[in-house]
Amino acid sequence: MIDKKEIAATYQQIQDEICSGLEKADGAEHFEEELWSREGGGGGRTRILQEGNVIERGGVNFSAVYGKLPENIKKAFKVDENDFFATGVSIVIHPGNPWVPIIHMNIRYFELNEETRWFGGGIDLTPHYVVPEDAVFFHQYLKKICDEFSPAFYQRFKDWADDYFFIKHRNETRGIGGIFYDRLQPEGTGLDYEHIFDFSKALGRSFLPIYTELIAKSKDKVFTAQHKEWQYLRRSRYVEFNLVYDSGTKFGLETNGRIESILMSLPPQARWKYNYQTPRDSEEERTLSWLKKGVDWVGIS
Amino acid sequence: MIDKKEIAATYQQIQDEICSGLEKADGAEHFEEELWSREGGGGGRTRILQEGNVIERGGVNFSAVYGKLPENIKKAFKVDENDFFATGVSIVIHPGNPWVPIIHMNIRYFELNEETRWFGGGIDLTPHYVVPEDAVFFHQYLKKICDEFSPAFYQRFKDWADDYFFIKHRNETRGIGGIFYDRLQPEGTGLDYEHIFDFSKALGRSFLPIYTELIAKSKDKVFTAQHKEWQYLRRSRYVEFNLVYDSGTKFGLETNGRIESILMSLPPQARWKYNYQTPRDSEEERTLSWLKKGVDWVGIS
Repeated sequence: MIDKKEIAATYQQIQDEICSGLEKADGAEHFEEELWSREGGGGGRTRILQEGNVIERGGVNFSAVYGKLPENIKKAFKVDENDFFATGVSIVIHPGNPWVPIIHMNIRYFELNEETRWFGGGIDLTPHYVVPEDAVFFHQYLKKICDEFSPAFYQRFKDWADDYFFIKHRNETRGIGGIFYDRLQPEGTGLDYEHIFDFSKALGRSFLPIYTELIAKSKDKVFTAQHKEWQYLRRSRYVEFNLVYDSGTKFGLETNGRIESILMSLPPQARWKYNYQTPRDSEEERTLSWLKKGVDWVGIS
Repeated sequence: MIDKKEIAATYQQIQDEICSGLEKADGAEHFEEELWSREGGGGGRTRILQEGNVIERGGVNFSAVYGKLPENIKKAFKVDENDFFATGVSIVIHPGNPWVPIIHMNIRYFELNEETRWFGGGIDLTPHYVVPEDAVFFHQYLKKICDEFSPAFYQRFKDWADDYFFIKHRNETRGIGGIFYDRLQPEGTGLDYEHIFDFSKALGRSFLPIYTELIAKSKDKVFTAQHKEWQYLRRSRYVEFNLVYDSGTKFGLETNGRIESILMSLPPQARWKYNYQTPRDSEEERTLSWLKKGVDWVGIS
């Protein structure tokens, strides 16, 4: 039997592992921690690393909150329970070097009662410049993890990520996708809660090997002012997605969550240029051409 | 009798007046125009001035669109009509000098049929640094215009602006407010449509004298890198308001409006700093202390 306390403790452990791994990869700065508690019950550990060697700003947050479920959430979730428990780890890293991609990862568990509980999560990559071999590496890694649990997971969760991480008003995906899932329960997966929890842990523990590999590959790659400018433009799309569409952000803003922890996902700096057009045959243009749903990164390789 | 064609033509005229006045005030750059048409009917003239002497980026947009009303809008407006007509002028100016405030102005007219039509609009000021005497000047000017039409307008529309231009998740107003009104009709105002239209024109024509005065006063004021940094931080709040709360932006994104015209309201550059705290007794701290509802700028003077 899985237990919410055990899940929260494991997630905290994963937060610790990731922070120490990222500090090593950054090589200069350390995470600063803020403990916060929530009026209605529970709290969290927000950890932010700023102006490091590799990481311009990154947040690795853990929270475990409980209490009364707000009426609007009850409606949205179509449930009639009053008490909830939710725990998770949430990460967004904005690297300084435009050749290193932005990464986001989230694993979470939500419980109303013995019958109504589920896991959710996802990981997605937003390269400022899409490097196909990195995208293939990323998706192959995710497929390998998924396949250990169910042959159906990768394709299902990859499509889900394509749909979820989509900036509708720009008609472009946020990046090259990844996997996304929500309300994962024994019904519909053929797995018991133990194994779904194992999947959640496996995803959480895939973050470091994936991202440290991508960092190592590109952190010393030379970039120009023009590359940096493009990075700022791409970051503005990240802002648009997070403020307009991201459900986690919306949920946080609507439930009076800790604002600075929620909005740590926003980049340190962003630019908007009116009607910007990428030059023909440029790397920027090629990047945009990859930002669409349904690219079969595993099949391409 | 007012007529939608006459209203649209007058709004176009106001766009012309404002653009030429702003070019004169900027002294360097000119507006570039893009004409666009909407699939369902109508179109607009988007005019953007970038990297001028005074204006880092400003947009002065006119549109007149018509067609079938989308189902979700019908529901939101609680109407059963199928055809709509909407026209307006929409302005956001982001100045380069942090001592010059960001300004926004909008006048608009919406028509479903002879019985169901209304005017809306507003103007609000977002100083990077709140200078009380400028705020008093701004509000006094608005009160004078309002008073010419109804003794009730200023207070009612000032309170409305305080409520509307509010960043709930930050618990701060976007700036020092101004006036905001919607669905203005003879019922509830004691004015006929002609006079409500006159009010709309008067507001539109208040933009230039107000903003050129504020530009003239502060455009040559010296600023430091620290002032500029603060400007970027304040601009990120402007981004948060526009993407999370602004109804015009939401309406535009949901109805597949012309994205670049809608998002011209976003600043050219913005910064987010994790958990930034203003220094004690600083101008930044004083500015924040003014960003609340209910400040009686006219009574203060």
